[in-house]
Amino acid sequence: MTADGTTGRTRRDRYEHGMEVLRQIDGEAGERVVNALADVSPEMAHQIAAWGFGEIYSRPALPPRDRQLVTLGMLTALGGCEPQVEVHVHAALNVGLTLEQIVEALLHAAAYCGFPKAINATLAAKRVFAERGLLPVHGD
Amino acid sequence: MTADGTTGRTRRDRYEHGMEVLRQIDGEAGERVVNALADVSPEMAHQIAAWGFGEIYSRPALPPRDRQLVTLGMLTALGGCEPQVEVHVHAALNVGLTLEQIVEALLHAAAYCGFPKAINATLAAKRVFAERGLLPVHGD
Amino acid sequence: MTADGTTGRTRRDRYEHGMEVLRQIDGEAGERVVNALADVSPEMAHQIAAWGFGEIYSRPALPPRDRQLVTLGMLTALGGCEPQVEVHVHAALNVGLTLEQIVEALLHAAAYCGFPKAINATLAAKRVFAERGLLPVHGD
Amino acid sequence: MTADGTTGRTRRDRYEHGMEVLRQIDGEAGERVVNALADVSPEMAHQIAAWGFGEIYSRPALPPRDRQLVTLGMLTALGGCEPQVEVHVHAALNVGLTLEQIVEALLHAAAYCGFPKAINATLAAKRVFAERGLLPVHGD
Amino acid sequence: MTADGTTGRTRRDRYEHGMEVLRQIDGEAGERVVNALADVSPEMAHQIAAWGFGEIYSRPALPPRDRQLVTLGMLTALGGCEPQVEVHVHAALNVGLTLEQIVEALLHAAAYCGFPKAINATLAAKRVFAERGLLPVHGD
Amino acid sequence: MTADGTTGRTRRDRYEHGMEVLRQIDGEAGERVVNALADVSPEMAHQIAAWGFGEIYSRPALPPRDRQLVTLGMLTALGGCEPQVEVHVHAALNVGLTLEQIVEALLHAAAYCGFPKAINATLAAKRVFAERGLLPVHGD
Repeated sequence: MTADGTTGRTRRDRYEHGMEVLRQIDGEAGERVVNALADVSPEMAHQIAAWGFGEIYSRPALPPRDRQLVTLGMLTALGGCEPQVEVHVHAALNVGLTLEQIVEALLHAAAYCGFPKAINATLAAKRVFAERGLLPVHGD
Repeated sequence: MTADGTTGRTRRDRYEHGMEVLRQIDGEAGERVVNALADVSPEMAHQIAAWGFGEIYSRPALPPRDRQLVTLGMLTALGGCEPQVEVHVHAALNVGLTLEQIVEALLHAAAYCGFPKAINATLAAKRVFAERGLLPVHGD
Repeated sequence: MTADGTTGRTRRDRYEHGMEVLRQIDGEAGERVVNALADVSPEMAHQIAAWGFGEIYSRPALPPRDRQLVTLGMLTALGGCEPQVEVHVHAALNVGLTLEQIVEALLHAAAYCGFPKAINATLAAKRVFAERGLLPVHGD
Repeated sequence: MTADGTTGRTRRDRYEHGMEVLRQIDGEAGERVVNALADVSPEMAHQIAAWGFGEIYSRPALPPRDRQLVTLGMLTALGGCEPQVEVHVHAALNVGLTLEQIVEALLHAAAYCGFPKAINATLAAKRVFAERGLLPVHGD
Repeated sequence: MTADGTTGRTRRDRYEHGMEVLRQIDGEAGERVVNALADVSPEMAHQIAAWGFGEIYSRPALPPRDRQLVTLGMLTALGGCEPQVEVHVHAALNVGLTLEQIVEALLHAAAYCGFPKAINATLAAKRVFAERGLLPVHGD
Repeated sequence: MTADGTTGRTRRDRYEHGMEVLRQIDGEAGERVVNALADVSPEMAHQIAAWGFGEIYSRPALPPRDRQLVTLGMLTALGGCEPQVEVHVHAALNVGLTLEQIVEALLHAAAYCGFPKAINATLAAKRVFAERGLLPVHGD
């Protein structure tokens, strides 16, 4: 393999590299998404891993913790992406964001996206926190 | 308290004033949202009451009935906010909009947001009407 | 014409009826939109008039003033519709909403759609107010 | 009836013509939506049929198969419209798009709307394929 | 190069293959976007070509003409993407969609995304048609 | 002033505290927005400063740098908020994000929001970088 990180890689190599990155960041929650896609859109499953994680997420210019902050902001703003908020709240905890930082990011979102989307994202986060036995979150 | 309506108020005062406004407009449906947030984002629960209702909703420049019309329009347009449509259909009925006016506002929304979002909001309204024993709504 | 309001009407009749409603509500700003569409999508120009205004806007279940409140909410929430906000701020003034009510509706929108969209809509309203010589708007 | 396709038609005629078009394209899935609206917004039910299908969908300038491609793109981009994606995946199959083309359109959507919305639409399509016994879809 | 279409390809090869596809579909309008990005986000310029066009657009499961229908639907629904609508109206003409089909797709969009977004997309299309000397478009 | 940070503060105090925070983060670009609103919606100008910056932005649970990452994600995802992207790219540079991190955050956004919105945000960032004499940005 050469310096640009793709030369000589097979399609299969790129998928497996991406899945490794995905597992480190999103954990089981991310794997479940890829598995759910496997029998309906195997190419989408491939591209999420090989491109999304293997090529984009793994770039060193922004560490995983910072990418999760951007991602939580985007998913809250898009709306209707509560399943993805859940996956990425798992990811945020996996890469070192604290409960309090996640909740604060979603409060911050209220000023930019309005309360309805911020509430929907916060209640999605709550489901993840409950599943992991982390409730209640204490305010300041 | 002085004329500007906030001087000398404690944080607790502001919350309680906001919760009073929230109860008058949104009723139990609104309280349930604030309660659901209490153990995950107590600050968001506080700000919805103290700021959203205490500072914004209670301003006299637009009466609650008119605010619900704006709100139903926004929630329909945002999309993916069906839980909030339900809360605000309760609110709309509480502040004097009729069933027929709510349904008409959502039909009007079809021309501006398209049918899919207008249908999703209308079916959310239907769930509230059913819960309150108000179906069927009669057309003209 | 029979009771249901469409029987026996020609396509041309329906267009002309819609254009009358459009002129009363949106005024010149609305006519400019229909004219701008005439040489690229004459059918869209037709449907905005004949259906949007002739069939939906003219329904008596919600008066024009209330429709503008819903519409201002929707356009703010959709985002990227500043030309339409301008048309409908003209319309809102035409059908009896005051400057202060329009501005208040867009402040209310900040809580539901976030500040960026509320600011963009408010600055679009400001352009209309400036054109009509109505600035400054006085706060309370 | 005259050449413009509406003269002399009653409101009832227009509804029935629209319902015929709707049944051919959307099938039972579309009828269920119209029926669900009947007791809450009979006018919205009417307009979906009479206007949406009778006047817009039935225009010959774009065949139903092409309209479904546009529609799948729009519903994926709007987000939060998974029930409508399901209806229109049924419709897409009814008017001649293959499984593979539908799945590919939604993969294509990932580049324009991002993966979260594309995943949500693909999993909605999967539910329709499962219901029709069409899984698994084979990649290339 | 092996059957999976990526083995052994260098990063540079993948970019150049993508740029060829981009030029065939989007023409000069697409090249201008890639060029505009080159000094601010060279990686985004690379990924649009190498991934967006080289890996996704070039997949045979859906021909370019069908992809443009999906794309016009998505861009209209997203809103605020008028520069992209212009690029893809050029693309749509390049891959065989007629003026009338493009205009009809955007009229169809009115029923799903509402008139404001459909109007904004149609006026963006009008700018492209004007630049190419194709106005007026004749209705039916 | 007591521990909760609001007791005893006048409306004017809260505004001035917020404007201080706003100036530190957004700099002149933010002040221009507040000034532009002053003659059309003085209350919105007040709330952006007093609430948005004074109450939300200044909370210590998330430092300004992290808030800008969330904000850039949200503004890109919302779409149609290019003026706000410009303000917040200024802010991002002011609070310590590097050019490369900003550009990388917007590339990351392509995977979640699609290329059109990511391109629009990146070209807005380019305008800010150009104004500050920071182009070209070097890729890796």
